[in-house]
Amino acid sequence: MKFFFKKSLDISEETKKLSSYIKQCKQIIDQNDYSSPESSLCLPSDVHILSQIDAMVAKKKTAKLKYVITIGIGGSNLGAKAIYDALYGSVDMFTPDRYPKMIFLDTIDPKINTAFLTFFKSHVKSADEFAISIISKSGTNTEPVVNAEVLLGYIKNRFSKWKQRCVITTDANSPMWNEGARLGIDVLNIPKQVGGRYSVFSAVGLFPLAMANIDIRSLLQGAKKMRDICVNESPQNYSFTSSVFQYQNWKKGRSIHNNFYFQPEFESLGKWYRQLMGESIGKEKKGITPIVSIGSVDHHSMVQLYWGGSQDKTTEIIYAKKSQDCFVPQEALFPTLSNTKGKNTSEIVSAIRKGTALAYKKQMEPFFEIEFDEINTYEMGGYMQCKMLEIMYLAKLLGVNAFDQPQV
Amino acid sequence: MKFFFKKSLDISEETKKLSSYIKQCKQIIDQNDYSSPESSLCLPSDVHILSQIDAMVAKKKTAKLKYVITIGIGGSNLGAKAIYDALYGSVDMFTPDRYPKMIFLDTIDPKINTAFLTFFKSHVKSADEFAISIISKSGTNTEPVVNAEVLLGYIKNRFSKWKQRCVITTDANSPMWNEGARLGIDVLNIPKQVGGRYSVFSAVGLFPLAMANIDIRSLLQGAKKMRDICVNESPQNYSFTSSVFQYQNWKKGRSIHNNFYFQPEFESLGKWYRQLMGESIGKEKKGITPIVSIGSVDHHSMVQLYWGGSQDKTTEIIYAKKSQDCFVPQEALFPTLSNTKGKNTSEIVSAIRKGTALAYKKQMEPFFEIEFDEINTYEMGGYMQCKMLEIMYLAKLLGVNAFDQPQV
Repeated sequence: MKFFFKKSLDISEETKKLSSYIKQCKQIIDQNDYSSPESSLCLPSDVHILSQIDAMVAKKKTAKLKYVITIGIGGSNLGAKAIYDALYGSVDMFTPDRYPKMIFLDTIDPKINTAFLTFFKSHVKSADEFAISIISKSGTNTEPVVNAEVLLGYIKNRFSKWKQRCVITTDANSPMWNEGARLGIDVLNIPKQVGGRYSVFSAVGLFPLAMANIDIRSLLQGAKKMRDICVNESPQNYSFTSSVFQYQNWKKGRSIHNNFYFQPEFESLGKWYRQLMGESIGKEKKGITPIVSIGSVDHHSMVQLYWGGSQDKTTEIIYAKKSQDCFVPQEALFPTLSNTKGKNTSEIVSAIRKGTALAYKKQMEPFFEIEFDEINTYEMGGYMQCKMLEIMYLAKLLGVNAFDQPQV
Repeated sequence: MKFFFKKSLDISEETKKLSSYIKQCKQIIDQNDYSSPESSLCLPSDVHILSQIDAMVAKKKTAKLKYVITIGIGGSNLGAKAIYDALYGSVDMFTPDRYPKMIFLDTIDPKINTAFLTFFKSHVKSADEFAISIISKSGTNTEPVVNAEVLLGYIKNRFSKWKQRCVITTDANSPMWNEGARLGIDVLNIPKQVGGRYSVFSAVGLFPLAMANIDIRSLLQGAKKMRDICVNESPQNYSFTSSVFQYQNWKKGRSIHNNFYFQPEFESLGKWYRQLMGESIGKEKKGITPIVSIGSVDHHSMVQLYWGGSQDKTTEIIYAKKSQDCFVPQEALFPTLSNTKGKNTSEIVSAIRKGTALAYKKQMEPFFEIEFDEINTYEMGGYMQCKMLEIMYLAKLLGVNAFDQPQV
């Protein structure tokens, strides 16, 4: 993963401001200290949690597994969905025979609930074909309870082994934890101090992802590598640099941060970031509004506003360098319309992206770039960890609590 | 469709400002005048265009049709996708046997292109099973040309009748129009003055939607009904009222407009609105940034920011009153966790939505509400027409040209 910042960014003042906090974060990691709100930083190297996940996955994974159904909303599903969609979800419609598939039930929607239940009834033949991960940090949210009641209300009447196919992930001793224990459903816990939006590397993200055959070790390795870089005062501390970038521009009145992803597969990753930024720093009448754009879709939708409208935005261009190959045929059907014949379509999108960065540069619109080597779990882990630290640093600079959510 | 505005909105000043423009819009409709940039207003009652669409659909529709593939980006696909996703697309994964399905290829993405092509190769048995709508207003955009080259490059080698399965929609005599004529592919045109973001009621939206069995007459009727209400100086002119709401709040520094949809099926409708607002008024360093939120997903993601962060937003709550029924079982699995047993899930979401409106009211955050009777083509047509007029009025109030896009 590479980061491209404008060389002239002066970080000296913010370095002074954050120096002791960076040290504190490093200490939390070194001491594996789960008593602080920053304790999500311990997760990438937590072998104890990983072995709990391994054991639960070993118990639940079956050869016939087709559907990993995740019931959860907000911090309970956005992280796993971000990773799954980047890897597989964006083409699930076109890969109907690839399994296991993850299915996410978040809000309550009669049409979606009904369609899903009808689908489930006709497409699932045995209890081995599905696993259900019910996630709620507080263990009290209405949406997962209702979605679980609707789905399990059917399943319990059809499959005698239904309880074995479920796992509840929640805070230890939460109301849902207690219900799970009463019913005899397996339960995983979330470390108390790890808030939903920082919980992707806990059981919240790891269990359903591992059930769906996604390489969670590589995800954690990417996160750990990035974390260890980003809790130091060094020019490679990208979390720090991007927090300074955001903070300095916010002080100049730029109150919208545009995450401009150049692979549509990353859209759910953008939605994960929206929560992370929105809930962490949107308080005390402060805050930056995160938005998600997709290149090149939004060249034909939003770029007019971004380049010609109010100068109230910062931009982050995110893309994967390597992708798979797909070539335009050598023999053009519309020969007068373009000179793309024989080209790899990745190159065409790259050219559009480079043109976009150049336009931001020419217009002196503040932006920076993040380049994934390719879309894989290692890079996703690194990006997500970098962003979680970025938001912790940014909250400190803004003087708000990154971990509460007083309004909801 | 019902609109709920705060009663105290004082519209007298803006009424004076817009009075002659409202008359002008009415005149354009009465004279069926396609020479003005507002000429999209003529589309809902254009029987000539409708009969062209009917003839083309009659020529192309087959009993075996499974896939209506739309190749287009921005104004060329956002409108049809908004309608399709609200009706069917959001549950396409769960209704694999419902046809015809619409498939939208917008940006160029090697992974999506490859996955789609592999899917197409194995799932399409005969030329009667697909129709391809290639849409580009200018007839020169890179994305549709590349996507068409990749797909048609395969199809032309496999299906001798491939040209009969395609329709190109573009400006008369554009480069793509000429290529279509040369190749012998059927062509539909877009009235010259109708820009992409205002083109949903032209062949751009109507042809692919009608191919997918969507009731375009009802869509146009809904649009016509709303249009005729909204080109008058009357309290029922919702386009006018919402433009005034936006304008007055923009003057007070509220530069973000949050479209808060309470049915996830409406997400693509929000993306359609993003382009409409973004490209139409984001210029001359003015503009309002449209964002899309989904209830209740974003209660667990963005509401903390909306309620506790910067006071820089206006909010529009959009929902459908009637939906289908889906009941929580009478026998609760988690009896201590909620009192939802036996309830229709629509009621539960309604309660969350009402709570949201109440919270905006209590916090004196500016908002208004739009209630669809249900999610159907008639209501969608009305909403989209209302919004197109809203943006024309808003541009006038802001003193920008609603129809150009100088930056792209």
